[in-house]
Amino acid sequence: MKIEVVPTARDLQPENLTGKTALVIDVLRATSTIITALNNGCQAVFPVTTPEEALELRRRLSGPILLGGERQGRRIEGFDLGNSPAEYPPEVVAGKKIIFTTTNGTRAIRACTRAANLVIASFLNAAAVVEFAAGTGTNILVVCAGTRGHFSLDDILCAGLVVDRLLQRLRPAGLDPTVDDLGLAAVDLYHLYSNDIRAGVERSLHARRLKQMGFDEDIALCTRVDCHPLVAIYHEGSVVPHSSGSTKGPTSGG
Amino acid sequence: MKIEVVPTARDLQPENLTGKTALVIDVLRATSTIITALNNGCQAVFPVTTPEEALELRRRLSGPILLGGERQGRRIEGFDLGNSPAEYPPEVVAGKKIIFTTTNGTRAIRACTRAANLVIASFLNAAAVVEFAAGTGTNILVVCAGTRGHFSLDDILCAGLVVDRLLQRLRPAGLDPTVDDLGLAAVDLYHLYSNDIRAGVERSLHARRLKQMGFDEDIALCTRVDCHPLVAIYHEGSVVPHSSGSTKGPTSGG
Repeated sequence: MKIEVVPTARDLQPENLTGKTALVIDVLRATSTIITALNNGCQAVFPVTTPEEALELRRRLSGPILLGGERQGRRIEGFDLGNSPAEYPPEVVAGKKIIFTTTNGTRAIRACTRAANLVIASFLNAAAVVEFAAGTGTNILVVCAGTRGHFSLDDILCAGLVVDRLLQRLRPAGLDPTVDDLGLAAVDLYHLYSNDIRAGVERSLHARRLKQMGFDEDIALCTRVDCHPLVAIYHEGSVVPHSSGSTKGPTSGG
Repeated sequence: MKIEVVPTARDLQPENLTGKTALVIDVLRATSTIITALNNGCQAVFPVTTPEEALELRRRLSGPILLGGERQGRRIEGFDLGNSPAEYPPEVVAGKKIIFTTTNGTRAIRACTRAANLVIASFLNAAAVVEFAAGTGTNILVVCAGTRGHFSLDDILCAGLVVDRLLQRLRPAGLDPTVDDLGLAAVDLYHLYSNDIRAGVERSLHARRLKQMGFDEDIALCTRVDCHPLVAIYHEGSVVPHSSGSTKGPTSGG
């Protein structure tokens, strides 16, 4: 069994996804916001690459729909919601479909659709993601969205948490997964900050930019570990809460 | 002033080199071997991308020439030397020109030729590299060769050493360089292993492969810190020891 970590969506090699379970991480803020929305009763999140694609998809979907996402960190003109988890409480999102587009996170999700299982990961739902991923029996590719094509410390710390826990979960079961160099480095970095994840995330350039823009609260919201026991899976165009039975294992995947 | 770290040569954006001082690192083993050869009196090292290019260049150069390098870690058929520093002692290389091609390192060097200054870095000559780079006054791009396009722990640890020392050198001088997320992570990782660099490097997949191939001694040779006070610069096709006067500063660079 192999566990690999990819530093940015740009580093993905599509052929490396086949048969694997991909865990996509964009701590600040896309995957944290998607998990928050689904935890608050949102029916499905449709990740799309551009605002134009979002508008086009809205014309084709039925039912109550919201448009969410950001460019340059801010809500897109004409959209209902931005990219802050705080904008997605139950009274806003319950029962709704959300079409969502962000600079890094939704692109990373869309880049991983070849994977056997495509799981949305964040600090908020890390425990649930690890439990799910360990149960697939497949090789695991942890995909950090990164920030505009660059290595991002916030995503790597979350990757380190996930890899560390996968190893704790799998080794006693007799499996001893091989971990690539970035996976080993991510675990080391996570251990340095495990007592104060927020402090580690705040060192990142992305967090510093968000603070300058007034999004301090988002950093606090996105660095709560294990507050939502939710597995969310991308399947045929949308991210939905996982119901058991749709997992692809190592033989059926790909 | 900015200090950035690039995880692999594949992640280089050529336009990001203009006006900068690039420090190219391939700990296992290309840049360690180049520094060893030059320290042992080799006249110049010509990094080329392919064995065919090496043979063609040999026809055009005059004087005593050796061919060195590796594919799959082993000496290339028909070449004089492989990629072990131990193969480049004074009695073999003094006064000679060496044409050199490796899987990761020489490609990384060739990918950086747009930089204002292109410096060959390794644990062996880290102190000299830092002193030189700090003196250029330019922005600094630390380029890890990586291993076959992947993040490599050995190179990142050396990058961390270099960035840590650059900050120690520049901050008291009143400069407070901005460091990108990978630079911050590299410094953190370096500090974890600074008491035993070899142990850190031996965790890397690349080191484990070399050990399986019987190259244990190379790992020891490539992890000696500051044993050669040598600055080596790529200029017009070859890497030569630096003589003062050829540095490009922030205004003349690019």
